[in-house]
Amino acid sequence: MKGLAMLGIGKIGWIEKERPVCGPLDAVVRPIALAPCTSDVHTVWEGAIGERNNLILGHEGCGIVEEVGELVKDFKPGDKVMFAAITPDWLSLEAQGGYSMHSGGMLAGWKFSNIEDGVFSEFFRVNQADANLAHLPDSISPAEACMLSDMVPTGFHGAELADIQFGDTVLVIGIGPVGLMSVAAANMRGASRIICVGTRQVCIDAAKGYGATDFISYRQGPIDEQVIKITGGKGVDRVIIAGGGVETFEAAINCLKPGGKIGNVNYLGSGDYINIPRLEWGVGMGHKQINGGLMPGGRLRVEKLASLVEYGKLDVKPLITHEFHGFESVEEALLLMKDKPADLIKPVVMV
Amino acid sequence: MKGLAMLGIGKIGWIEKERPVCGPLDAVVRPIALAPCTSDVHTVWEGAIGERNNLILGHEGCGIVEEVGELVKDFKPGDKVMFAAITPDWLSLEAQGGYSMHSGGMLAGWKFSNIEDGVFSEFFRVNQADANLAHLPDSISPAEACMLSDMVPTGFHGAELADIQFGDTVLVIGIGPVGLMSVAAANMRGASRIICVGTRQVCIDAAKGYGATDFISYRQGPIDEQVIKITGGKGVDRVIIAGGGVETFEAAINCLKPGGKIGNVNYLGSGDYINIPRLEWGVGMGHKQINGGLMPGGRLRVEKLASLVEYGKLDVKPLITHEFHGFESVEEALLLMKDKPADLIKPVVMV
Amino acid sequence: MKGLAMLGIGKIGWIEKERPVCGPLDAVVRPIALAPCTSDVHTVWEGAIGERNNLILGHEGCGIVEEVGELVKDFKPGDKVMFAAITPDWLSLEAQGGYSMHSGGMLAGWKFSNIEDGVFSEFFRVNQADANLAHLPDSISPAEACMLSDMVPTGFHGAELADIQFGDTVLVIGIGPVGLMSVAAANMRGASRIICVGTRQVCIDAAKGYGATDFISYRQGPIDEQVIKITGGKGVDRVIIAGGGVETFEAAINCLKPGGKIGNVNYLGSGDYINIPRLEWGVGMGHKQINGGLMPGGRLRVEKLASLVEYGKLDVKPLITHEFHGFESVEEALLLMKDKPADLIKPVVMV
Amino acid sequence: MKGLAMLGIGKIGWIEKERPVCGPLDAVVRPIALAPCTSDVHTVWEGAIGERNNLILGHEGCGIVEEVGELVKDFKPGDKVMFAAITPDWLSLEAQGGYSMHSGGMLAGWKFSNIEDGVFSEFFRVNQADANLAHLPDSISPAEACMLSDMVPTGFHGAELADIQFGDTVLVIGIGPVGLMSVAAANMRGASRIICVGTRQVCIDAAKGYGATDFISYRQGPIDEQVIKITGGKGVDRVIIAGGGVETFEAAINCLKPGGKIGNVNYLGSGDYINIPRLEWGVGMGHKQINGGLMPGGRLRVEKLASLVEYGKLDVKPLITHEFHGFESVEEALLLMKDKPADLIKPVVMV
Repeated sequence: MKGLAMLGIGKIGWIEKERPVCGPLDAVVRPIALAPCTSDVHTVWEGAIGERNNLILGHEGCGIVEEVGELVKDFKPGDKVMFAAITPDWLSLEAQGGYSMHSGGMLAGWKFSNIEDGVFSEFFRVNQADANLAHLPDSISPAEACMLSDMVPTGFHGAELADIQFGDTVLVIGIGPVGLMSVAAANMRGASRIICVGTRQVCIDAAKGYGATDFISYRQGPIDEQVIKITGGKGVDRVIIAGGGVETFEAAINCLKPGGKIGNVNYLGSGDYINIPRLEWGVGMGHKQINGGLMPGGRLRVEKLASLVEYGKLDVKPLITHEFHGFESVEEALLLMKDKPADLIKPVVMV
Repeated sequence: MKGLAMLGIGKIGWIEKERPVCGPLDAVVRPIALAPCTSDVHTVWEGAIGERNNLILGHEGCGIVEEVGELVKDFKPGDKVMFAAITPDWLSLEAQGGYSMHSGGMLAGWKFSNIEDGVFSEFFRVNQADANLAHLPDSISPAEACMLSDMVPTGFHGAELADIQFGDTVLVIGIGPVGLMSVAAANMRGASRIICVGTRQVCIDAAKGYGATDFISYRQGPIDEQVIKITGGKGVDRVIIAGGGVETFEAAINCLKPGGKIGNVNYLGSGDYINIPRLEWGVGMGHKQINGGLMPGGRLRVEKLASLVEYGKLDVKPLITHEFHGFESVEEALLLMKDKPADLIKPVVMV
Repeated sequence: MKGLAMLGIGKIGWIEKERPVCGPLDAVVRPIALAPCTSDVHTVWEGAIGERNNLILGHEGCGIVEEVGELVKDFKPGDKVMFAAITPDWLSLEAQGGYSMHSGGMLAGWKFSNIEDGVFSEFFRVNQADANLAHLPDSISPAEACMLSDMVPTGFHGAELADIQFGDTVLVIGIGPVGLMSVAAANMRGASRIICVGTRQVCIDAAKGYGATDFISYRQGPIDEQVIKITGGKGVDRVIIAGGGVETFEAAINCLKPGGKIGNVNYLGSGDYINIPRLEWGVGMGHKQINGGLMPGGRLRVEKLASLVEYGKLDVKPLITHEFHGFESVEEALLLMKDKPADLIKPVVMV
Repeated sequence: MKGLAMLGIGKIGWIEKERPVCGPLDAVVRPIALAPCTSDVHTVWEGAIGERNNLILGHEGCGIVEEVGELVKDFKPGDKVMFAAITPDWLSLEAQGGYSMHSGGMLAGWKFSNIEDGVFSEFFRVNQADANLAHLPDSISPAEACMLSDMVPTGFHGAELADIQFGDTVLVIGIGPVGLMSVAAANMRGASRIICVGTRQVCIDAAKGYGATDFISYRQGPIDEQVIKITGGKGVDRVIIAGGGVETFEAAINCLKPGGKIGNVNYLGSGDYINIPRLEWGVGMGHKQINGGLMPGGRLRVEKLASLVEYGKLDVKPLITHEFHGFESVEEALLLMKDKPADLIKPVVMV
């Protein structure tokens, strides 16, 4: 079978591989729709997770079940299915402890395009199918389902990590597709004022639709100073970090109230250290909690987030700015993601 | 000064009292707008909290500061102010323990029209003014401010007690003004499906606007059976109880999933016991958590909930179906609340 | 193979069955030590979970692995193993939602001697062996391991459900073996005063060793009145219910402070309703949280609780008052549990 | 009146000041026993909180009420009282939000010897006496009461911030008096293995008594490497930081499991940044939560922690290695704290 792979750092290409073997708990799925992710760009062109050779890329999509293992009960060939980018090992101790995304080691619940072949392939294997697949409802389009693999669960986890409460003033740093879903999620947890850091018009327009109330830009000066100013010196209750780099945390701490919380869902691709300013962190005693975590995956999570789309509570369509057709165009979509033109939020590929 | 009082169980009337004395931490306020509450009806005509003689009624409103005590720092005569129905003693141990609404004893943070004269008066005293008053912003009308005294904080506390999570299916029992605010709050915490129990068309219309997705009626049969049926046998993740009586909990338990939570904000006016069905409560081990609590009050709470109105995240205007003018019309508004015509959600009185 | 079974309500006997088939994820284990549980008594002589025919009893013990399925990675024949009474299906949605004990339905994570044959057998099957077995360390004796199947995890869950905090005054109702472990657990979560309801001297002596500070008896009058009296009218912060019946909750509510929490781990064998007193529950608004739940099981839980024994933080030996030898004596041990003589806490059987 | 003051950075001396004025909510207290704190040393000789002139030092002790304000209800002259080092403004919004230690600004609930005169004085003022004093029970000695001002609440808060669970493996970095109380608190929250970083024999002996199971030393190499080694490569579930400096966090992150939590209660006296290693923090997504906070103060907290001493659950006497007599000897005790001889844990001064 054919797949779009990372040949090595900085290099992608189509390769031929054997169709994956379906273990007793697994399913083999063929894609209906696919979407590239900024992580794929990091993985290939920044080598963010290290060298990988002939690893098939991709972890967003939906598909049709081709084959199931003998222990699979809830799915059969022909079923249309959704899945999360993170497909944990639910029999692990980490899953029992509530951190399935780290099953088998830190971040090791992330299998597609990381430690196993991804979904930009004619067929891909889903481990523990009963626990990691979900039926695709008629009311959710394949393109929408792609957003439920990673953008929605990652963005929403930012709001969970930051523990948004009714009436909170929230700062969301970065309003790419993940940040936009963090805006939507902060709004859906009851934030009142949502201050966004971002400059691209297409993202600002989408953010307004998702509940953002204020916008600031790096270009206008340090963001912490701007936040302090527009909040009348008070700062914010919560910060969601969905963009920037290791240096972003300093500004976040600086404009966060004592008792506040930070939720980071940004993959930090470079830098040795995140620098937490000692004084503004209350000389160690300011109760400014710092959280950062990989999205939870698995079937229940996908089903619950999908139900927000089904019941009209969340509209993911504004994320999808570009649509491609044909399996091969996944390459073009990925390169578009790499180039990131001004009008792009997310592309999808209808296979 | 003049006030509308409970003369005794079943009897109201206008009385003359001395203007309240302003203690060093207190403020004396005169009303701009007032609203009667179902609790006032319970208190007078059902004697729900026992006999009270010549107790001035009312705990919803907003006003203008007339006088402040010598230790008050943040308010001065002439300030327009909001307040919550619950005005705790913040120097109590209960407040330190996180339950300010029970400061001085169970429910004793509720002072207005319960253990002290209420706000249906030419002047009323607010204890610990710096901690229990909030400045009324220009962007919030006096009528809206009345909704922030009790309907919003009580309804929203239902969603907090039930601990709504993203994608939850939530049952809201009762869609009077408190239940409507529970619907809004469940929606603002990320519920996907919100099933309401209620029959009055004016409430159903408002509930749809606040995010309700399904409606069932007591008249169509037992509500637990209806819920089980429309959820395909699964039941709900959460229940908010904002209406009914002691018998309502049985239906709630019956259609709640293991691991589910109930949040009650309904004042249970009669009956000796709430009956929890042993078998459906998992013979004691079903992890169906039962919560019930009086709304948190105080300045921070009012400010945070008011910010939802200020930033356009919550519209309380659909609650206000009847508007009266003139201080004396508070009596007519209260009697309307007692009669509860089909088109009523909440009346307000512009003083 | 031979097993001690419930033949029908009120009747036990030895039966012959086929050795269980080992599925790909399972293990077959033969017992080293076994212990009967009050639940076995309820099941047989009260018919508490309904009719069961020829169901092998028992869910406490430890053993040696006889056989493992082809997908099992961490265990092999000959390994000495511990297990919890609750052996969930970790691939279920309920487990993903944090309630593995209800995997497959309310209480359905409880398989041994409930919905599958139990451990009073020459061989028994453990589902999902990698997730439900734990290696038995040399520092833990087989008799101690039996206590880690149910008494420790159930008793400790009572303290978790009641959410004990530093300096809390805690009421523990019932000081049989589960209640004693709730006392130990409350003490290990930082309770200061631990008031126990119980009368048998052997249990009182053990409770003192586990941290109990006060004892009251049903025979001296209503327990709520006694608690109110010895706490100077204040009541308690937390209640753990590990004995009594459906009527016990009323006393618990009556002497619980607003903001307090109840954790029930008692199997409620009879009665239609748990009666929550309306007035003392704050007319629905007293913030007295009611929890009840089946113990969490699985490998991680067993390993963590076992580590308390390994590091000398918990001594379970005082629970074991009677020791039998020989597989067949499990019958005598069970009958002893039924008769409950004055000097009994728990018997174990060394196979 | 006479007091031992910080004259300026690096300089202490006895000064004369007016006796503090007692506001309507306040009490004036004269000391029975006092204790110096490492914070006093930081404040004076490191200038850690900046220049202070003629500020009376000290925030640990107990005393006798000399005078109360007209609004004080629960205390009267002659009462023996305890207090916490942190005496919040309970009428503040921060207190309503659950962070009373930051009332009036980050760390501003810390008044004694920080923003107001401390307790090394013939008389000292306690703000909001009803909310910040507690009656000293007969069963607690004045020397023990001194430990309840800061060492116990700070050390215990470390265990709260790190959110210790049953069976956790916990690393406690630093076993001075605060670290020792963190060991005791971790033990009282149910930790099984408690690994301590420390070298002084007097502290190691005390730590063993409080539940420590393992000891490592900076002198034997990097502490993270030692922890990884003795945990068989697994790392720890929780870290409490009660010593070291800004660089300590790197080791803590390195040996913490995904899903783990850090609780810092160490005053970080110098350095610009706390450095969080990007890779070991899971490139931002490892779910390694970082907490740091000032101890909660106030009356309820003191009463609850004191109850642990009253009921024999916590013995603070091993902390007190040196005892002085006479008010003037507070100077000698403070200098001893500065010199920190090998046999010192804490000195107390009996006035």
